[in-house]
Amino acid sequence: MAGDFRYDIVEEIGVLSENAKGWRKELNLISWNGATPKYDIREWAPEHEKMGKGVTLTKEELEALKKLISF
Amino acid sequence: MAGDFRYDIVEEIGVLSENAKGWRKELNLISWNGATPKYDIREWAPEHEKMGKGVTLTKEELEALKKLISF
Repeated sequence: MAGDFRYDIVEEIGVLSENAKGWRKELNLISWNGATPKYDIREWAPEHEKMGKGVTLTKEELEALKKLISF
Repeated sequence: MAGDFRYDIVEEIGVLSENAKGWRKELNLISWNGATPKYDIREWAPEHEKMGKGVTLTKEELEALKKLISF
């Protein structure tokens, strides 16, 4: 079913920031619909009841990202 | 106008990966609608003619992200 969407936050790695409404931008390891977990950067409502747009990253992509961050 | 959406890629920092269709996941510094540029992680079509969902990050958020990446 189109609405049959599941995710499991396998590991909460950390919070990048929190806004005035309590939403937090987080780095997590998430399994989407039972697939292999991927790193994930997005905003979440305080109790994770809602999520914003974000991006998923493999370990290799996250390693490449770390090298690119030059400060 | 609703569709009046503008972005300027101020700096192309680097590519995290490229998929079979030539789309690249990139870290860029982007000004959205003339606002202060923010770091940005998302997928782009080969000539940047289309973009995927992604996430914008301040410098502080990117610094926090770098610290969280432990490998």
